[in-house]
Amino acid sequence: MSNQTAVPSETRSVDATLRERAQRVVPGGMWGHLNAARLPEGYPQFFASAEGCRIRDVDGREYIDFMCSWGPILLGHKHPEVQAAADAQAARGDCLNGPGEVMVELAEDLVGMVPHADWAMFQKNGGDATTACVTIARAGTGRRKILVAKGSYHGALPWCSPSVAGVTTEDRAHLLQFEYNDAESLRAAVAEAGKDLAAILVTAFRHDLGRDLELPIAEFAQAVRLACDNADAALIIDEVRAGVRLDTRGTWEALGVRPDLCAWSKAIANGYALAAVTGNDRFRDPATRIFVTGSFWCSAVAMAAARATLRIARETNVPARIQATGMMLRNGLASLARQHDISVRQSGPPQMPLMLFDDDPEFRKGRAFCAAALRHGAFFHPAHNMFLSAAHQSSDIERALDAASHGFKAARELGVNNR
Amino acid sequence: MSNQTAVPSETRSVDATLRERAQRVVPGGMWGHLNAARLPEGYPQFFASAEGCRIRDVDGREYIDFMCSWGPILLGHKHPEVQAAADAQAARGDCLNGPGEVMVELAEDLVGMVPHADWAMFQKNGGDATTACVTIARAGTGRRKILVAKGSYHGALPWCSPSVAGVTTEDRAHLLQFEYNDAESLRAAVAEAGKDLAAILVTAFRHDLGRDLELPIAEFAQAVRLACDNADAALIIDEVRAGVRLDTRGTWEALGVRPDLCAWSKAIANGYALAAVTGNDRFRDPATRIFVTGSFWCSAVAMAAARATLRIARETNVPARIQATGMMLRNGLASLARQHDISVRQSGPPQMPLMLFDDDPEFRKGRAFCAAALRHGAFFHPAHNMFLSAAHQSSDIERALDAASHGFKAARELGVNNR
Repeated sequence: MSNQTAVPSETRSVDATLRERAQRVVPGGMWGHLNAARLPEGYPQFFASAEGCRIRDVDGREYIDFMCSWGPILLGHKHPEVQAAADAQAARGDCLNGPGEVMVELAEDLVGMVPHADWAMFQKNGGDATTACVTIARAGTGRRKILVAKGSYHGALPWCSPSVAGVTTEDRAHLLQFEYNDAESLRAAVAEAGKDLAAILVTAFRHDLGRDLELPIAEFAQAVRLACDNADAALIIDEVRAGVRLDTRGTWEALGVRPDLCAWSKAIANGYALAAVTGNDRFRDPATRIFVTGSFWCSAVAMAAARATLRIARETNVPARIQATGMMLRNGLASLARQHDISVRQSGPPQMPLMLFDDDPEFRKGRAFCAAALRHGAFFHPAHNMFLSAAHQSSDIERALDAASHGFKAARELGVNNR
Repeated sequence: MSNQTAVPSETRSVDATLRERAQRVVPGGMWGHLNAARLPEGYPQFFASAEGCRIRDVDGREYIDFMCSWGPILLGHKHPEVQAAADAQAARGDCLNGPGEVMVELAEDLVGMVPHADWAMFQKNGGDATTACVTIARAGTGRRKILVAKGSYHGALPWCSPSVAGVTTEDRAHLLQFEYNDAESLRAAVAEAGKDLAAILVTAFRHDLGRDLELPIAEFAQAVRLACDNADAALIIDEVRAGVRLDTRGTWEALGVRPDLCAWSKAIANGYALAAVTGNDRFRDPATRIFVTGSFWCSAVAMAAARATLRIARETNVPARIQATGMMLRNGLASLARQHDISVRQSGPPQMPLMLFDDDPEFRKGRAFCAAALRHGAFFHPAHNMFLSAAHQSSDIERALDAASHGFKAARELGVNNR
């Protein structure tokens, strides 16, 4: 012990100290998508507070945040109206022997907001909602096969987790794959499922980690709907990541395609833990026949927060507002990239953007960009789609672009050094 | 329309009106364990508020509550210290880009509190925790078979839901069953699993719906541990329903048996949505290799509530306090049953009691008892284990026993009428 060169404790960051403590009592120090191990050097693991579009880490560094807690924060942290609705409900009750009036109101809100929806049910995780959709589709059709797009994320349960550690072959026995936006591969998978096709499960857009995002092509969306109609199967849209942020009616409504079942979570309650399934009348009876439940699924505070969040999203056209700020960010980044003579690709909807560098298969430029931008106060992600909120103002985008210019400089220098 | 005999709206209860509205926008009007359809006549579906051990329905009727929101409420609703801890955290931040310091502190608390635990991870649902335990056990052993007791409830995911609607055979391909508290049937199941035994998953005590509760027999618990040791498999205890309420160290600690993995939820945060897995060092590495995650799993407010809840549970010996009130209820019920000359069986730990009537296979006496007691202000359950909280005082038990005497009268009259 006495021979160790100890780092003087006054120079240790709070984050580093917490990581050490976590290493002892949490496997690997952290798990899942919030594990900072895959983020560039300098990214914090632990956070202290947040307000609007600013987050603060445990060392007091503040960032303009472009992850929005990986999606849930739609209106900005501590939105006063959402907070007031949640607090008012909390003063009455949260987790009771049954739901409150607010559950009925929220279900009515969703049925009014989402054109395909005749009914709604509530859960806690996005994966609860996608799993319930699959179960309802199987109960309603009496069939087993579920078609999913290769690489799409639908949650971290054994049937859909991106990792197969601890997962058995049987957990995925009835999944068949197709390529997102590829109607031909869809047809092949439908043919393979044959008379056993229960559902096609598809994300609102293609947002796989580390590759350019893809909006759904209208012809593909229509092919999905047609395939379900022809086979009498369910079209399930997984809106967990995109829902409300792109279109309060559902992302595919603009394409003229409506699902039978839809899974929602993340942004619907502005950070409060909630998920929802919406469905049409065809799947109402199957939804009564399955058994799904959870200890906290009817907790009233998150539902009150959701009602306020969805009302504000509709009344102030949040998707369009975030789209405008997202376009400002996108145009600013494009302009900066040109100035720094570095080629990038920007993809996805402006509300959930991704910027990848050309000739950057290992994300080295992207990581250098992010690390430098972080030091200058902007929290970007090098490989996962980002999220903007209604709290981002033009001035925030300008400050973030200033941070991004340092990012481009760092990425550019990395490129030069590599030659 | 005009020929219908409409019930005048002033006589309609708020609950009935809400049920009608819910019927339109929620499949079956309600789903899962909170569905009041299976409860006796007169039970409300919707609740307005709660305080301590009192709950109030949407029609303003107040009850001394013996369900505690089906488990989560350990210290009573709106416990001031839990509330203060949660509110203080909420003022800083809840759902952020990563966990807060409170996650590390809570993991440290659990490791300090639960003797088997070297580490902890957090989730939202009890089913998240049991599923993670199973996945970790499979990842750690490289095997597939999970032994579960016939009839035990481990959540409502396809692999464990009590209903098979929408579930495929493959979802349960690697489950083998034994009888709770029956070492012989356990041995047979272990033999059947052979070299493929990943884990034995067992509830803290036997709390199956509608039958007498059974505490684990020490010899059985030891046989479970021995079978896991001999096969190099994981012993997983599902403490979701019983955890903390019976023993803050874990229910089997008093039997001298420690699990490898343990699933917690319900009571750990006094009603805030949280679940946890604790594990020993043997399963630390497998826990790092699986991928499980959720959008709200690291939300800080529920963790702050959990820290306060667990501290109070330890420092004020909540299990013993609730046990004493539970014994008072049990003795009072036994005495009233004798007075009314009616035979009942009381089972389970006093903190989570069940009273079943003799010669009552369809729970008609039990339902009559509950319906009458409800009218007199006590919220009991005829078939599911009940829950007491630290907020129940002697005076509450006395009032509830007064309500129960009306219940016994009703049950007795039913018996007489049936002769």
